[in-house]
Amino acid sequence: MGKIGDFSFDSEPPLRELLEAYKAAGFQASVLGDGLGLFRKIQEEKASGCRVFLSFTANMVASGLRGIFADMLKRRLVDAVITTGGSLDHDMIRAYDGYELGAFAADDGELHREGINRIGNIFVPTKHYELLEEKMKPVFEALHARGPIVSPSEIADEMGKTLSDEGSFLHWAHKNNIPVFSPGITDSAIGLQTYFFKQKKGCADFGIDVTKDMGRLAQIALDAEKTAGIVLGGGISKHHLIGVNLLRGGLDYALYVSTSEGWEGSLSGAPPSEAVSWGKIRESGRYVNIRGDATVVLPLLHYGAGGEKND
Amino acid sequence: MGKIGDFSFDSEPPLRELLEAYKAAGFQASVLGDGLGLFRKIQEEKASGCRVFLSFTANMVASGLRGIFADMLKRRLVDAVITTGGSLDHDMIRAYDGYELGAFAADDGELHREGINRIGNIFVPTKHYELLEEKMKPVFEALHARGPIVSPSEIADEMGKTLSDEGSFLHWAHKNNIPVFSPGITDSAIGLQTYFFKQKKGCADFGIDVTKDMGRLAQIALDAEKTAGIVLGGGISKHHLIGVNLLRGGLDYALYVSTSEGWEGSLSGAPPSEAVSWGKIRESGRYVNIRGDATVVLPLLHYGAGGEKND
Amino acid sequence: MGKIGDFSFDSEPPLRELLEAYKAAGFQASVLGDGLGLFRKIQEEKASGCRVFLSFTANMVASGLRGIFADMLKRRLVDAVITTGGSLDHDMIRAYDGYELGAFAADDGELHREGINRIGNIFVPTKHYELLEEKMKPVFEALHARGPIVSPSEIADEMGKTLSDEGSFLHWAHKNNIPVFSPGITDSAIGLQTYFFKQKKGCADFGIDVTKDMGRLAQIALDAEKTAGIVLGGGISKHHLIGVNLLRGGLDYALYVSTSEGWEGSLSGAPPSEAVSWGKIRESGRYVNIRGDATVVLPLLHYGAGGEKND
Amino acid sequence: MGKIGDFSFDSEPPLRELLEAYKAAGFQASVLGDGLGLFRKIQEEKASGCRVFLSFTANMVASGLRGIFADMLKRRLVDAVITTGGSLDHDMIRAYDGYELGAFAADDGELHREGINRIGNIFVPTKHYELLEEKMKPVFEALHARGPIVSPSEIADEMGKTLSDEGSFLHWAHKNNIPVFSPGITDSAIGLQTYFFKQKKGCADFGIDVTKDMGRLAQIALDAEKTAGIVLGGGISKHHLIGVNLLRGGLDYALYVSTSEGWEGSLSGAPPSEAVSWGKIRESGRYVNIRGDATVVLPLLHYGAGGEKND
Repeated sequence: MGKIGDFSFDSEPPLRELLEAYKAAGFQASVLGDGLGLFRKIQEEKASGCRVFLSFTANMVASGLRGIFADMLKRRLVDAVITTGGSLDHDMIRAYDGYELGAFAADDGELHREGINRIGNIFVPTKHYELLEEKMKPVFEALHARGPIVSPSEIADEMGKTLSDEGSFLHWAHKNNIPVFSPGITDSAIGLQTYFFKQKKGCADFGIDVTKDMGRLAQIALDAEKTAGIVLGGGISKHHLIGVNLLRGGLDYALYVSTSEGWEGSLSGAPPSEAVSWGKIRESGRYVNIRGDATVVLPLLHYGAGGEKND
Repeated sequence: MGKIGDFSFDSEPPLRELLEAYKAAGFQASVLGDGLGLFRKIQEEKASGCRVFLSFTANMVASGLRGIFADMLKRRLVDAVITTGGSLDHDMIRAYDGYELGAFAADDGELHREGINRIGNIFVPTKHYELLEEKMKPVFEALHARGPIVSPSEIADEMGKTLSDEGSFLHWAHKNNIPVFSPGITDSAIGLQTYFFKQKKGCADFGIDVTKDMGRLAQIALDAEKTAGIVLGGGISKHHLIGVNLLRGGLDYALYVSTSEGWEGSLSGAPPSEAVSWGKIRESGRYVNIRGDATVVLPLLHYGAGGEKND
Repeated sequence: MGKIGDFSFDSEPPLRELLEAYKAAGFQASVLGDGLGLFRKIQEEKASGCRVFLSFTANMVASGLRGIFADMLKRRLVDAVITTGGSLDHDMIRAYDGYELGAFAADDGELHREGINRIGNIFVPTKHYELLEEKMKPVFEALHARGPIVSPSEIADEMGKTLSDEGSFLHWAHKNNIPVFSPGITDSAIGLQTYFFKQKKGCADFGIDVTKDMGRLAQIALDAEKTAGIVLGGGISKHHLIGVNLLRGGLDYALYVSTSEGWEGSLSGAPPSEAVSWGKIRESGRYVNIRGDATVVLPLLHYGAGGEKND
Repeated sequence: MGKIGDFSFDSEPPLRELLEAYKAAGFQASVLGDGLGLFRKIQEEKASGCRVFLSFTANMVASGLRGIFADMLKRRLVDAVITTGGSLDHDMIRAYDGYELGAFAADDGELHREGINRIGNIFVPTKHYELLEEKMKPVFEALHARGPIVSPSEIADEMGKTLSDEGSFLHWAHKNNIPVFSPGITDSAIGLQTYFFKQKKGCADFGIDVTKDMGRLAQIALDAEKTAGIVLGGGISKHHLIGVNLLRGGLDYALYVSTSEGWEGSLSGAPPSEAVSWGKIRESGRYVNIRGDATVVLPLLHYGAGGEKND
């Protein structure tokens, strides 16, 4: 509690001071201010052994947030990433060639005829997927050479090994030995590539055993004294992050950034409190649910968190 | 086009007539009216060879919609189901014991202490998951006996084989030989069970190869002269449904029911037109995007569709 | 509480039975089922003296809901209406000529060049506003002849007096002597017409005194033993309805139908519980907040309520 | 168009540079970046004669945004304000006493018993409304002394005259002679006060003629060579702002910040393009629709706009 404070800068404030003012402004500004405090707290706790899980959706890797994910892994702010197959697609393609800023209101039929795929206001040329096919071949071959059955985290690691782009989160995940889990990996362009790869001579035995990652992910949660989750968006990645923490009685810290509601009972829209009922977040846990687009919110958190102490 | 028509019944109309009036009422009523027309059209086309894909999210199987999914499979209105692992959890548990109607605004800490897990306003007692463990053991054993590496659709089929509840969609899927795909199956209670099962003596070699289902799903799309998608909610199930149709140049018919937007670029909120740019829905395709909770919308479509001819 | 029940009709059920099944289905289906119970309860209470307030937004009068509003007033199910000026515009215009069903994704520049104004997927030809001007002239003249300063409810009543269309809510409001309040009336085409009317010779003294309606509206609330609010959508109409009930310690019954959230602190998205803190709904009050488009929801409530007894 | 750019700062960037990076990041970050460009453009155009209209909802004046509204009026960045009566309530009360930062999930029954009114996560003690009554009395008396029938903009101006708080937007509106329009003014605590005031001896003739402001507002639009609208949130204020610009063929610039959608046909959720069909925004107009909470977005725009030249 405290008084609502009006914004009252005379000129452009430093980012940190602006965000400090958010805390007292009410509505989502205050929630974002609280979220910043929690984001900092998670970084502090990480330094004393808390294990941090980060989940995000594939569309975010098509956006500028990819650079922040890379930075978080470069700076070892997280211990495990959980995401969808599309994130692997976009990260690899963008290590070689860029996406275009387009418009939400584009004519999709026309785009299709021009060979452009739309993700909101981001345009992805179809030819980029040919590039992905070319770049994935050696990845699959290298994996296959070591044994026919692989796990999603092994695929992600092998991809990262081939990428030298410092803006790539897979590059940093590989370099810093941070596992990237992708329990629904076949639902992606990479998934389609496995289908094509298996049709090649001598590769029909290739497979992705998703149970292989269960133990690895579970162990991170079970070994930790404390855990924290940074959950951007919803879907399978969100659920997998909070779900694995059930094994240890729940997350100690949970920061959600979401545009989705819960009035239709969806997991994507479920607030942190719902996870408390399941034991996926501890009753004693600290959590914040920021409502807004992560492309706007995460940069404020990441660059505003600085590194200073906080509540 | 046509005039906006006012609702003007003198007394309670038959459902069908009410929905007919929706068409001319504007806003989402008209969209729902259009959606009903498309829903009927898909049933007609199914009769002449169109392959129908149905996707839904796990929370829907915790709701009364489970009965409609069962009915759609019983009546062979669909050729393939795509859903998350949680749908399998809920379907099996509810074949043995029920869920409770609760409240969105419940105290989640208290629920946790009482052993109740909340999904929106649906309460799931924790003990139900012990039941799931017990019922899944013979399923895993039967599968393991046939070979160590299984696919998600084989698990779903084996589960359905054990269920005699006529309200179960897995029961009817098995009975009518309709595959249930679940590309992210480990993200569920069943996923956790595989983790426990692998720790049993002699079962460490058990695995779920998600690439095994790729060919099976792809073949349904590739063999079809026409395809249709009924997409309820978002997430991996939605994307997998439209994604596989890329292989054949897109869906001919797509009916979405969604509460999610697209202003943050999410796949869950992406409208059908966005899928046109990707070739996941044909440029010439017919599609409708109904905005609302599927628990309200789908019963109107399913029971309103009747079976009569329509535009 | 009670078990979640699966939908399980063998064929198209009567509307009433379908809605009965909604109650046990979870998520918004259950909320709608509860809302139906409350809608019926309000009708019962009305019969024993409860005063019922109805608020809606102008776009709804452009839709097929206009027919339901007319029916509610014809059947004297409400004691007072609170709405915006645009509702008066649309109701009068549509008494003479129709609107068209269009498309959300229309090209608005093209529409503008064709003289078509868009409200979501409803098209309103610009020429209709010339018709409004013609029809409002005698209304203003009649009012002005009785005195220069009028209230919004007097304008609404005078408009209703001129309308013989049985689909018009203003027609029935006048006929059944039910006041229509419009505290923000100048924000509408009628508002623009007053501006033109005042420029006419001898009419500069014309004015709309919005305080004149305060006492009239307050008296309805203060005289009532019980009050109920049916609040469709948000904005000034919603707030005015709940706000006046502050004078008597709050509504006894409140049914909201809304697509809006409250995470940005808006009144439009504020749930009923927030109104409890203000004393706009009684602590002991019964309330339901249905999330969805009123064009889909209200017909289910109105035609499903039938007239039978209910909890 | 241009490449999607990853965020890539090594340390906390200046606010301006961060927002520059938003432009290329995709999704709402890009929209916000575009909005910043438009916000700057509007300031530039203002310097060469463009008339700027600003609308906002009352809840925003309960939040820290009040300080930004005050600053915009102090710096004469706008020519007219359009808002609801509640904005006048909150602005005056907060000039004397503060609001508290609370929580969205508070127990509203308990708050009611403690005399606290909730607006999202902002708490307003009931006693503040007694203060408002006390402070409004001399305002009404001063107005009444000059004549019985007043306009909303006269009330707002008279209120501002009594306020010395530099955080008050009414203070600066009065000081800088910027009219504040409030077409639905009686829907507020001030509205209730007029009801009480009229019951006083000798004050029954007091009235608020809302048509008085029509001409004044219209003249600003008609006299302008160009006009711009900054539209925060929806409701009557949004509509009145764009509606008056119909008289001159539409706004040249329109910046919306909104959490609301348009799928139910509401004005609050209507995107700028819909206003183009009506001629409320010019076909040639430049507009941006930022999706998010204004408490997060507006500070970024206001403090990020700086004053430099921009596209």
